[in-house]
Amino acid sequence: MTHGERKIRLLIAYDGTAYRGWQRQKEDPTLQGTIERVLQKITGHPLSLIGAGRTDAGVHAWGQVAHFQTRSTLPPERFKTALNALLPKDILIRAAEEAAADFHARYSAKAKVYDYWVLVGPCTPPFLRNYVWVLEKAPDWERIGRGLALLLGKRDFSSFQTQGSRVSHPVRTLFQASLLPVPWGGIRFRFKADGFLRHMVRNLVGTLVRLGTGRISLEEFQEILEAKDRSRAAASAPAKGLYLRKVFY
Amino acid sequence: MTHGERKIRLLIAYDGTAYRGWQRQKEDPTLQGTIERVLQKITGHPLSLIGAGRTDAGVHAWGQVAHFQTRSTLPPERFKTALNALLPKDILIRAAEEAAADFHARYSAKAKVYDYWVLVGPCTPPFLRNYVWVLEKAPDWERIGRGLALLLGKRDFSSFQTQGSRVSHPVRTLFQASLLPVPWGGIRFRFKADGFLRHMVRNLVGTLVRLGTGRISLEEFQEILEAKDRSRAAASAPAKGLYLRKVFY
Repeated sequence: MTHGERKIRLLIAYDGTAYRGWQRQKEDPTLQGTIERVLQKITGHPLSLIGAGRTDAGVHAWGQVAHFQTRSTLPPERFKTALNALLPKDILIRAAEEAAADFHARYSAKAKVYDYWVLVGPCTPPFLRNYVWVLEKAPDWERIGRGLALLLGKRDFSSFQTQGSRVSHPVRTLFQASLLPVPWGGIRFRFKADGFLRHMVRNLVGTLVRLGTGRISLEEFQEILEAKDRSRAAASAPAKGLYLRKVFY
Repeated sequence: MTHGERKIRLLIAYDGTAYRGWQRQKEDPTLQGTIERVLQKITGHPLSLIGAGRTDAGVHAWGQVAHFQTRSTLPPERFKTALNALLPKDILIRAAEEAAADFHARYSAKAKVYDYWVLVGPCTPPFLRNYVWVLEKAPDWERIGRGLALLLGKRDFSSFQTQGSRVSHPVRTLFQASLLPVPWGGIRFRFKADGFLRHMVRNLVGTLVRLGTGRISLEEFQEILEAKDRSRAAASAPAKGLYLRKVFY
């Protein structure tokens, strides 16, 4: 960190519907780009905002964490107020605080929680059209629960990463994988892990739903997990049902 | 009904965020106006769409019912398909069916169910900003439950109608008034009655929340109810938390 600079940490919620994802890119709007521009207005200098999770287009967040460095002497609470006054309504800064010099939103993260919302029904409630994945027929949730139990613990999740991409260390520890009934005849998946591979939650949910509709057996699900091969898993569940719920440090 | 005309009944869901309410008026867009225009395209003749409930700007619906008369010979199922193909994504036709000549979406209704969603939290989740009312502090839900119990049955609800408007028969029978915990730290109110006065649910929720935060006592709540005087009740809860859930015939 340059002399005279401080580090500020933000807790951010957003509706991802209108954005091309977290990460800054040529095509606008992105969440990182939108918030950075407002921060540059507030501080009067260029800066870079580093997020804990690079959520995809259409993915939402309740507990995204990000940090930036600044020469500004503005108190953190004033950053929060100024950002919320200048940002569009689909982005909310829940908190802003001073961070230690060695804090890094991505690399310091110890665990993350992602939620995924599924509804069952012949049609999608229009007020939920950007916020849940709607299945025409109810899967067997108990069967899905048995699949979730197989995922817990430390394992190689290669089968559930983005097709084409291969990270060098595809081993993650899944601490929680649960289901909760929610209104409108829905279910909320919750996954807590020390880290997630790209598209991992959406690939897991897509494959679990296939298990729940009987298109694959529990044995086949286990085989897919053990194959460490993305081509074996089912298609991704859509982005709009996914929420970055919390980041632990 | 003119000779050669049929009556079609629609079951309609919508996200009311972008609309100035159900009822057709000079300022666009309205739900009635939007659906009528598409129906006129499909049938090739002018027509009028009568809805069961004239929801306000920002109010949502899962089970709005409406009827129209037409000379078209299109099967009801085709109306549904054509409407859903031509309507914007925030309106969904859940069903279309032939209705009896004496069916009237508004006058034949025996009961209606309205839901109202409240969340508690220091801030509003951006993905729910158009769909719930967020209270900064949790009210005493048990106290609200006691207030709800006082409302049940056949009574004069004048205290909870729109200020200024006076209908000649302000007596309604409330069959159900309940609370259900929902995700994101929320509560869903549900009201079922043989009919509702204008703004009745929003005025009830506004006053019940005031009861729950201790700003009025249970005795004062009862007095407001018995006063049959709108000026005694609290401010309306915002439209965005309200859903027309179901109409019974």
